Amino acid sequence: MDDIIFTLTDTAGGLELADWEITSDELGLKGGTPFEIVKRTLHGGRQEGSTLVTIRAGRLAVTVIPTRGMGILKASLDDTNFGWASPVDEVVHPAFIRLGERNGLGWLEGFNELMVRCGYEWTGHPMVDGDKVYTLHGRAGNTPASKVEVRISREAPHRITLCGLIKEKAFKNVEFETFTELIVVPGDTGFSLDDRLVNRADYAHPYEVIYHTNVGRPVLEEGARVIGPFTHVAPFNDAAKPDLATWDRYRGPTRDFDEMLYACELAAGADGRTEVALVNASETLGFSVTYHVEEMPAFTLWKNTDTDKQGYVTGLEPGSNYPYPLPVERAAGRLKTLEPGAEARFRMRFALLTDKAAVATCTARIGKLKAGVGVTVHNEPILRRQTKA
Amino acid sequence: MDDIIFTLTDTAGGLELADWEITSDELGLKGGTPFEIVKRTLHGGRQEGSTLVTIRAGRLAVTVIPTRGMGILKASLDDTNFGWASPVDEVVHPAFIRLGERNGLGWLEGFNELMVRCGYEWTGHPMVDGDKVYTLHGRAGNTPASKVEVRISREAPHRITLCGLIKEKAFKNVEFETFTELIVVPGDTGFSLDDRLVNRADYAHPYEVIYHTNVGRPVLEEGARVIGPFTHVAPFNDAAKPDLATWDRYRGPTRDFDEMLYACELAAGADGRTEVALVNASETLGFSVTYHVEEMPAFTLWKNTDTDKQGYVTGLEPGSNYPYPLPVERAAGRLKTLEPGAEARFRMRFALLTDKAAVATCTARIGKLKAGVGVTVHNEPILRRQTKA
Amino acid sequence: MDDIIFTLTDTAGGLELADWEITSDELGLKGGTPFEIVKRTLHGGRQEGSTLVTIRAGRLAVTVIPTRGMGILKASLDDTNFGWASPVDEVVHPAFIRLGERNGLGWLEGFNELMVRCGYEWTGHPMVDGDKVYTLHGRAGNTPASKVEVRISREAPHRITLCGLIKEKAFKNVEFETFTELIVVPGDTGFSLDDRLVNRADYAHPYEVIYHTNVGRPVLEEGARVIGPFTHVAPFNDAAKPDLATWDRYRGPTRDFDEMLYACELAAGADGRTEVALVNASETLGFSVTYHVEEMPAFTLWKNTDTDKQGYVTGLEPGSNYPYPLPVERAAGRLKTLEPGAEARFRMRFALLTDKAAVATCTARIGKLKAGVGVTVHNEPILRRQTKA
Repeated sequence: MDDIIFTLTDTAGGLELADWEITSDELGLKGGTPFEIVKRTLHGGRQEGSTLVTIRAGRLAVTVIPTRGMGILKASLDDTNFGWASPVDEVVHPAFIRLGERNGLGWLEGFNELMVRCGYEWTGHPMVDGDKVYTLHGRAGNTPASKVEVRISREAPHRITLCGLIKEKAFKNVEFETFTELIVVPGDTGFSLDDRLVNRADYAHPYEVIYHTNVGRPVLEEGARVIGPFTHVAPFNDAAKPDLATWDRYRGPTRDFDEMLYACELAAGADGRTEVALVNASETLGFSVTYHVEEMPAFTLWKNTDTDKQGYVTGLEPGSNYPYPLPVERAAGRLKTLEPGAEARFRMRFALLTDKAAVATCTARIGKLKAGVGVTVHNEPILRRQTKA
Repeated sequence: MDDIIFTLTDTAGGLELADWEITSDELGLKGGTPFEIVKRTLHGGRQEGSTLVTIRAGRLAVTVIPTRGMGILKASLDDTNFGWASPVDEVVHPAFIRLGERNGLGWLEGFNELMVRCGYEWTGHPMVDGDKVYTLHGRAGNTPASKVEVRISREAPHRITLCGLIKEKAFKNVEFETFTELIVVPGDTGFSLDDRLVNRADYAHPYEVIYHTNVGRPVLEEGARVIGPFTHVAPFNDAAKPDLATWDRYRGPTRDFDEMLYACELAAGADGRTEVALVNASETLGFSVTYHVEEMPAFTLWKNTDTDKQGYVTGLEPGSNYPYPLPVERAAGRLKTLEPGAEARFRMRFALLTDKAAVATCTARIGKLKAGVGVTVHNEPILRRQTKA
Repeated sequence: MDDIIFTLTDTAGGLELADWEITSDELGLKGGTPFEIVKRTLHGGRQEGSTLVTIRAGRLAVTVIPTRGMGILKASLDDTNFGWASPVDEVVHPAFIRLGERNGLGWLEGFNELMVRCGYEWTGHPMVDGDKVYTLHGRAGNTPASKVEVRISREAPHRITLCGLIKEKAFKNVEFETFTELIVVPGDTGFSLDDRLVNRADYAHPYEVIYHTNVGRPVLEEGARVIGPFTHVAPFNDAAKPDLATWDRYRGPTRDFDEMLYACELAAGADGRTEVALVNASETLGFSVTYHVEEMPAFTLWKNTDTDKQGYVTGLEPGSNYPYPLPVERAAGRLKTLEPGAEARFRMRFALLTDKAAVATCTARIGKLKAGVGVTVHNEPILRRQTKA
């Protein structure tokens, strides 16, 4: 049976619905977990014109920002919020973002998402390399979606797919299309992403991506831990060395902490997938990210346990590579390339864990992945991939 | 009694009224000076989406630009206009301004206000200082207000306060909120500002501000003078030296004049306030700025008596410091800092003078401030504060 | 008799019609070639807010982009489309373009027009020259029109003029106004431009313009030729030298071709006009540009016969000068200047040729212009004008 499809945005037809909503009741889809999907357009300040799509299904709610590259603003399960409190307290519209400002750090003026796509032309820290200018974290996260569709399965449990097309196109430079999908199965306590990056050009093109996934309170707290089948952990730079011995544990909000980054690799299970989770100190709350190691072999752990007002947050960041500037990633052999017409797929699942049992189930899954896996903690940054591709 | 409050813009509620108006009659506020308040949204060209709020009360009219940091576009008393004729003849929306363009001079593409806030992260001339990039006059003037409210006192004379919130926020960089207030008391021939800049971050942050207040014809003309209790006057740079002897008098439109700037200090009265005025040659027209010297110890006098088409205008600019680049101001000991949670207040009154009596009253007030005050005219730029803080 | 006038955009009145249309029938203009004029506002992705005005008259259709400097997106005659297939497949709104990005190549993120105005402050390739920053192809093509009017003659054949005002204004930098006119005479198989650039400043200002006119399939194909009374042809740079011997013939889509540019001069007829045409291999299709050599003495031939997906296209580009950076053009003596209040006029006619007879008529016209004209093909770039002004 065909899905029920609603088009919310379409550059081809010149469509951008300002406000829209639908419920399972209105669709006559009864018997399963009830859901509603709402689109709203924001106004005022630097968020003028931003759009949000929120999917509420049973205990779960997820809010996506079509105008910011289909990034995920926040998610919640019952009354527990997942995301973080950024000093950036508006959903800034890309018309107000100049990525080149602040010496290539203009991206920081809009950063407040639970998950923002960093890529796909480049993904890392800013650098000027000859006539090439790489701004922080690339352009996708500040590109409004060209097409947004909601697809709802007519069959229970009425799987909901929010599709968004992100175009990165510049004559003589790049012709990327990323077909993003966010999938919610009503009744579930998590949700998934299934993205396909396609190189529409006639020439091969390097690409980089980091799925910059950011969690703060209440999961993050003093004594929270990150767990996963880590095989290699290395400080990203000198600033990350002081806490190397406790790389997998979190401090409470710490004045002058700023941030520490670790470049990691994780082992995968037989299905090629791995799982990494943040759990709170008492193991009653957690957030896990499951992804395919072959699709994203580099994992960056970003510990930003500065004070609450500065943004107390950690990043669990699967990626094609680490956030060193592109020329560094190229030299390290981590830069991937898409042939003409070829595509790369990036799949993830985010699980929201709000009770001891859910956390225990997750840690047990991760425990199985860790069986027989030893972690090597490096004292210096590793600039070449440790695991063979 | 509570004020009557109208919310015109609110990012929290996603509100941006496109067109709105209210009159004292509609509010049933009779007996006092009648007033009307009108909001309009502009369209076309680079002003698409700009908003204007005009307050008309008795003889006075003031027009504010919420989308340009609550700047004041113009004011008038009866038929006399205060402001200036900039070559920039549209109210340019910040979406079209790139401050980094033109080697950091992109701000000039939108400059045409009677008063524009320069600040608050930095305020002066552009400079690249290591990895810090300072563009001309900061970002506040090109930041759309996040919240705009009109508050009207129920009690005569029904004081009108236009409140606007300007957010300057960037992760790891700045978390400033400025609560601006423009106050019109119906029946008055002037109006006031009462701004509070708050540092929402957990770390101290330097700030700079200049209230760039600009007046052209008809007050400005050949033989117009600036008067005030000046204590120190110094050329801003070599270009200002030729007219040092006549620093307080104005030329008519002068081909190839470009501009001359003077860095000044003024004495305050017992209440800590000072007043500086521009008066025309025959002392029948004037514009005065009253402010607190402790809040803004630096006063910049900008004489831009170039030809009419280039923008024949002078700036009376109280500020926390002078418009040298931030590193220069820091070295000069003029850079101020806001502790976490702390706030700085900036209060001003603008008086519109349209007859000989009004000018005489103003010059008499200023005369009292000048009593016993001598001005030192320096031949070279002074880079350190002359008056003890 | 006065024209019938419709105002579609006007910053003065705050007008921007979102959707509008009119037909000759509705106007009661019967007997001539029927026409319709349609304005639409686009939505979604980076084209949010872009506007298009399409004039359809008989066999001809022309689509103009008011929000992109009145550029011409495409034209068609019957079923034959003139324009090209750029990798940039949306009509990108200037709010999303940062000309300074990509090391001054941000213009490439929106480039897909049949004709885009490059100018008028500068027109060429990017360069940083001291404190002057020249981005690729200037700002006019990414400036929304401040006023757009449709004027329709009441007398048959009811000439249609689409007028658009482009302002380039920045305090202390530039005060240009360009009054563009696109003229369609219903029944005609081509259309004309008549632009006037006015320097509103009190000082002389240099200007540069290139009418970047771009044609791809079906006219462009292997064996297509460019014809015209060329007098001088020189490679723009070393990259253009390999095909110098076949400068007037086109390859089919060629992998790794990228682009070759030739700096050319053309002879004019007794009326000061010249004509240059692209004709396909079998001479059944063509596109010609007629212009005044005195108005635009430099002609750039841009051969971008790369693969189809990269944008298989050629540019026939009359201009005041070549697309070298402005300082290079100044040194070469090609930089023109507008005195205060002075204006420069740029007139062109574009003819769409869709059958052998039309092509033959065009080539015959050009043949007359070529009579007695010899072309000098230079082996090295010519940096000084060959023909006396």
